[in-house]
Amino acid sequence: LSDDVVATDPTTIALHSADMPGLRAGQAVALVRARTTEDVSTTLRIAHETRTPVVPQGARSGLAGAATAIDGSILLDLSEMNRILRIDTSDRAAVVQPGVIVADLQAAVEAHGLFYPPDPASADRATIGGTIATNAGGMRCIKYGVTRDSVRSLQIVLADGTVARTRPATIKGVAGLDLTSLIVGSEGTLAVITEATLSLIPAPGRPRGVTATFASLAEAFAAADEIASGHRLPATLEFLDGVALTGVRMVQPELAIPHDAVAWLIAITDAHVGAEDDLASYEAAFRAHGARTVMRAETPEELAVQLTARRALNPALNAIRGGATHGDLAVPRSLLRDLAVLADELSAETGLPISLAGHIGDGNLHPTVIYDPEDPAQVELAHVTSAKLHELAQAVGGTISGEHGVGVVKLGSVDGELAPALREIQRGIKRIFDPLGILNPGRKL
Amino acid sequence: LSDDVVATDPTTIALHSADMPGLRAGQAVALVRARTTEDVSTTLRIAHETRTPVVPQGARSGLAGAATAIDGSILLDLSEMNRILRIDTSDRAAVVQPGVIVADLQAAVEAHGLFYPPDPASADRATIGGTIATNAGGMRCIKYGVTRDSVRSLQIVLADGTVARTRPATIKGVAGLDLTSLIVGSEGTLAVITEATLSLIPAPGRPRGVTATFASLAEAFAAADEIASGHRLPATLEFLDGVALTGVRMVQPELAIPHDAVAWLIAITDAHVGAEDDLASYEAAFRAHGARTVMRAETPEELAVQLTARRALNPALNAIRGGATHGDLAVPRSLLRDLAVLADELSAETGLPISLAGHIGDGNLHPTVIYDPEDPAQVELAHVTSAKLHELAQAVGGTISGEHGVGVVKLGSVDGELAPALREIQRGIKRIFDPLGILNPGRKL
Repeated sequence: LSDDVVATDPTTIALHSADMPGLRAGQAVALVRARTTEDVSTTLRIAHETRTPVVPQGARSGLAGAATAIDGSILLDLSEMNRILRIDTSDRAAVVQPGVIVADLQAAVEAHGLFYPPDPASADRATIGGTIATNAGGMRCIKYGVTRDSVRSLQIVLADGTVARTRPATIKGVAGLDLTSLIVGSEGTLAVITEATLSLIPAPGRPRGVTATFASLAEAFAAADEIASGHRLPATLEFLDGVALTGVRMVQPELAIPHDAVAWLIAITDAHVGAEDDLASYEAAFRAHGARTVMRAETPEELAVQLTARRALNPALNAIRGGATHGDLAVPRSLLRDLAVLADELSAETGLPISLAGHIGDGNLHPTVIYDPEDPAQVELAHVTSAKLHELAQAVGGTISGEHGVGVVKLGSVDGELAPALREIQRGIKRIFDPLGILNPGRKL
Repeated sequence: LSDDVVATDPTTIALHSADMPGLRAGQAVALVRARTTEDVSTTLRIAHETRTPVVPQGARSGLAGAATAIDGSILLDLSEMNRILRIDTSDRAAVVQPGVIVADLQAAVEAHGLFYPPDPASADRATIGGTIATNAGGMRCIKYGVTRDSVRSLQIVLADGTVARTRPATIKGVAGLDLTSLIVGSEGTLAVITEATLSLIPAPGRPRGVTATFASLAEAFAAADEIASGHRLPATLEFLDGVALTGVRMVQPELAIPHDAVAWLIAITDAHVGAEDDLASYEAAFRAHGARTVMRAETPEELAVQLTARRALNPALNAIRGGATHGDLAVPRSLLRDLAVLADELSAETGLPISLAGHIGDGNLHPTVIYDPEDPAQVELAHVTSAKLHELAQAVGGTISGEHGVGVVKLGSVDGELAPALREIQRGIKRIFDPLGILNPGRKL
């Protein structure tokens, strides 16, 4: 590897050792800023020969700690492999390197009248490789699915440095086992992604939305249910609860959220035709279930303003007492009510506010326990309570991670929802891909 | 296992030993008609203890021979586990046993205003379990994806009889590796599916279509390209070439296909709103690229008549000389022209007509070599030529199976499109799931 690709000085390594959860990072031995698939292959070949752990990294914007440095590891930074290699309008496909920023790809395909649906909240900094490795979600999944649904084929580098393509880049194909989907969401534990062929769709229409506030959670859930199970599937259906709205009022008083509102919904359509009828039907559902306020967002500017309530969720929650756990769970949508009741009970028991905001359209919420970071008892109680909330999700048939991933943050609780036999199978699959256990060891599985 | 679940008499076994390709079946030792997951578990436990091969079977309508009896095997028939356990409009999900017929599920969810998109040509006899095990396609994939895209979670029985659920039945979830997608399309080699939670979507509008005929293949390809890469994505976009039309004229003279037509397309919309504009745009694309005849199908009856040309493809091809190979390949759509040129060359070389009809919208065609079954030289030449066509598809970056599967029919050629390292990984995964190799051995991998 050439000198300008490898860094071993402690300062550079330290600057690349953390990701979003801010966990204590291990001490890596080197940083490789790969520029080519060959760089990745060479790095893995050397790592394999020397049994050195490798931590693949994109933008390090992941929320589960899967890209945090490991002691003695090589940090394999893919962010400089950031070229869009091809946009093919006939095949409706894009071929990209893993370091391309999601928003950059979105903009590039838009210029061809096409659309790349995955849109995680971190789209303006997250890389395609990172979002594939975590099977990232976001606010458009109710209509367009998750990142996996847009991945046609991957070029990967295996643990020993071998370069391979998971499948031909056709739309349909059943010649092999679905290794592509197996790599998607595997958080760098099975292989390193060096190129992706992604499915694009025709550009949708201009997004327009309706927001509403409610004086009861039950009314908001009923309205969301009517919209999500109805015929006019929105592109986005998001939810804020009373605790989240308390925070929103603090950080965004200009939104003038009514003081008696304990629930907020936004439904967005991006239909080319029938958008007006979509909006009317969302508005009718809101009003039929007792919305106190209903507001249209017809222009991109109005929509952006309305969405700030949702987009500023984390700062809003942090504003209440200074500290907030950040959760991610999913349940079958019909069980959201049960989850809300359980969260209420936990809040009453602990005296800590609990928010259940998020992607209500697909049952993926980001439960948050609010605490005072200056009070050690509250800090501990908040994290214990957050863990309980996730266990509750598992208990009602849900998952402790809808979209953020497992990384190290949720490693302790992930086994709670997988049959022991399948845990063993997962570990067996890991051994097949990575017999020496050098690929992001101790993460995901 | 109770006596009424197990049959060991040779006649009953013989009646359950063949599937569609009509390959010479092995001699199975028993037929188990499972009625419960426990029956399946008991069967696999016994098979595991006695190292007996197990051939899972649905309707035995598969085209790749994956359900043909193996010598000394247990035939594990799932077709009597045919109950729809739940249709949940709030979660837009159906929970079904594997023996449910696809068309029965389609009808049942339709009564709730919902829609199960997968629609293989065999929908009126194929089972849900079989279509999941083969990741079945059909005529609606261009808009709705393949069977995998509708599978949320599976209950499976592992090789040793252990019952497990692949993941929680949430819409989103990244806690584990994607074992669900791994089971989908694995043709009974990794586990036996005993229950499926399927995603449903809001019922689309009434399907309406436009058909067109062309005097050149290039014109038809250009028209298909414009429609498939445009903004008004059809629910179905199908293609017949000149050879196929020759057969259609023979078996369906009432369709009055023009004598100079060498290509036929149908584009169908099922949009609730904008359907008229969709049809107008398809019609405009057909006319812009030189269509000789254009015909609307506005009512279900008219559409059914127009579709008979496509649905009767196999009888039509058989009518020409009496014999026809039945192929299944997929290429990136932009490479269809190259494939057609190569097929033409092969036809000229061999003197055998070659048809390239099928799902042009997603690049999945069913190439067919026409032969006289009374002429042994033609029979052999036809099969060699069919194999060459599939190899050509691989050579241009495609696959030898878009939707039919590998089974035993394509086992010899499947490795041509997978990197050697990934073949080994696939076999490793097989060993992890099925260390004794009792699950449908010798198929798929």
